Amino acid sequence: MANVQPLGDRVLLQPLEAEEKTKGGIIVPDSAKEKPQEGKVIAVGKGKVEDGKTVALEVKVGNRVLYGKYSGTEIRVDGEEMLIVKEEDILAIIKK
Amino acid sequence: MANVQPLGDRVLLQPLEAEEKTKGGIIVPDSAKEKPQEGKVIAVGKGKVEDGKTVALEVKVGNRVLYGKYSGTEIRVDGEEMLIVKEEDILAIIKK
Amino acid sequence: MANVQPLGDRVLLQPLEAEEKTKGGIIVPDSAKEKPQEGKVIAVGKGKVEDGKTVALEVKVGNRVLYGKYSGTEIRVDGEEMLIVKEEDILAIIKK
Amino acid sequence: MANVQPLGDRVLLQPLEAEEKTKGGIIVPDSAKEKPQEGKVIAVGKGKVEDGKTVALEVKVGNRVLYGKYSGTEIRVDGEEMLIVKEEDILAIIKK
Amino acid sequence: MANVQPLGDRVLLQPLEAEEKTKGGIIVPDSAKEKPQEGKVIAVGKGKVEDGKTVALEVKVGNRVLYGKYSGTEIRVDGEEMLIVKEEDILAIIKK
Amino acid sequence: MANVQPLGDRVLLQPLEAEEKTKGGIIVPDSAKEKPQEGKVIAVGKGKVEDGKTVALEVKVGNRVLYGKYSGTEIRVDGEEMLIVKEEDILAIIKK
Amino acid sequence: MANVQPLGDRVLLQPLEAEEKTKGGIIVPDSAKEKPQEGKVIAVGKGKVEDGKTVALEVKVGNRVLYGKYSGTEIRVDGEEMLIVKEEDILAIIKK
Repeated sequence: MANVQPLGDRVLLQPLEAEEKTKGGIIVPDSAKEKPQEGKVIAVGKGKVEDGKTVALEVKVGNRVLYGKYSGTEIRVDGEEMLIVKEEDILAIIKK
Repeated sequence: MANVQPLGDRVLLQPLEAEEKTKGGIIVPDSAKEKPQEGKVIAVGKGKVEDGKTVALEVKVGNRVLYGKYSGTEIRVDGEEMLIVKEEDILAIIKK
Repeated sequence: MANVQPLGDRVLLQPLEAEEKTKGGIIVPDSAKEKPQEGKVIAVGKGKVEDGKTVALEVKVGNRVLYGKYSGTEIRVDGEEMLIVKEEDILAIIKK
Repeated sequence: MANVQPLGDRVLLQPLEAEEKTKGGIIVPDSAKEKPQEGKVIAVGKGKVEDGKTVALEVKVGNRVLYGKYSGTEIRVDGEEMLIVKEEDILAIIKK
Repeated sequence: MANVQPLGDRVLLQPLEAEEKTKGGIIVPDSAKEKPQEGKVIAVGKGKVEDGKTVALEVKVGNRVLYGKYSGTEIRVDGEEMLIVKEEDILAIIKK
Repeated sequence: MANVQPLGDRVLLQPLEAEEKTKGGIIVPDSAKEKPQEGKVIAVGKGKVEDGKTVALEVKVGNRVLYGKYSGTEIRVDGEEMLIVKEEDILAIIKK
Repeated sequence: MANVQPLGDRVLLQPLEAEEKTKGGIIVPDSAKEKPQEGKVIAVGKGKVEDGKTVALEVKVGNRVLYGKYSGTEIRVDGEEMLIVKEEDILAIIKK
């Protein structure tokens, strides 16, 4: 598989299908003002550099996360649809 | 229950119904320019990273808070309507 | 009385009536471009966090203050109309 | 006289009349793009807090200053028209 | 070959052709909201200066990278089309 | 002469006439997108306060400088047209 | 020749003619979204002051550089057309 290493505070996500999401108990209401989506963290950047120190990301590879639907940039890696977002576009980690 | 861990300075809130609010003595007038709402803190992020140090949030799990009505992102967790907001969108803690 | 603890650099104010204001000698001219109002500080937040240190507010509970008329968020606490503003929206403390 | 203590980096000014200004030799041309006005400093705030330190204001009580005409908020103190401005809206101190 | 030394946090990129990209397994879907492109790093700046320290870039000469299609400034070096972008416009490094 | 002491990083300038400018060899082409003008520094502020330290201005009293034509605020001091600008609006010092 | 000393992080450039540029192998395509131009560094400012320290510029007098066509302010020095730009508007140094 092609290896995509996000830069800085970016994260590579694999969007999760609706079926998988309902199992997990997290549903986004149709009336939601800003619809978040669920995804899986495939790769993370090294973090943002602040005052010469690199601040590691809070999300880790394998985490399931909620992110803003209109965030990031879509790419296709080995036939799979993926998304590169900044960590600030990730709302929460879902633990099950 | 699905476990939602907010990222950074985000907070997971459960909005409180109007009946509960009137009991507590806090009423938002109909004429209010920007209507705040009351909610219960279900989970809090680790805080914002500033100059390499993580600044813990001021609100704690269990707090009842006032927040801007149009803040945040709605999600449904195990059938319950919830909201993920940034702590800066929370106006005050209500103690009774 | 319900206890409202403002967050961060926010302040809970009780607006003062016009009669009380004229006694104090501070009158806002009708022609004023941006009309300030007088209020009483009911509760203050712990302050803003900067570089990991909390900067306490300059206004104290009991102070009478001038604030921008269109600032903040209106709430009603135990039947009283109150306002939550950021300290930066407070122009001055009135001492009599 | 009512005592108005400006907050932070704000300054309480008493605008000076046109007659007084021409005596001092400072005239604002009619064609000026942004018309400054002359005023007297009545009270000053403690200064802005930066990195936990309070930076005292450069203007002092009694200074005559030039400030942007459309700056600040008008109030009336004991029948006198006054203005609360931020120090950054003051262009210069006039010494005579 | 003319030697182009990018300034600060800028990077000189050689855009890669579509054929090369499909071999690598990274495809940008036609429906993508913001289309990233693949390129090769030809030269990098010394980095951005923050608080008097130079922060070296994360990308290195020879890296294959994904960058926003509408980023940067096009130039032609010895007949080759090149692009100068800021590092923040680079989304990820592709390792194969 | 009235003494105008600019505040912070502001500078008091006396605009120079066109005749004087052509002698000095600096001409602003008619087609210039943003026309700079030449002036003489009459007084300078103490500088901007950053992190509690005052950063002195680079221009000195007596310098001839180029500044953006539409910068600053016009005032008249003892019948002379002057300009108060921020130092960042000054492009260069002219030495002859 | 009149001596123009740019202030802060500004640079005095002499634009280079098209003929000279093609010799060097750097050509800007007609279709370029934002057209950079080639110029020679005639004088540089002392640098930007950050946290009380002056950060020297990366470009030096004599460097040939690429800069954004619509950057800066045009002036004429002793009959020569020149340009004052901020260093951040310079994309790269050309070494031949």
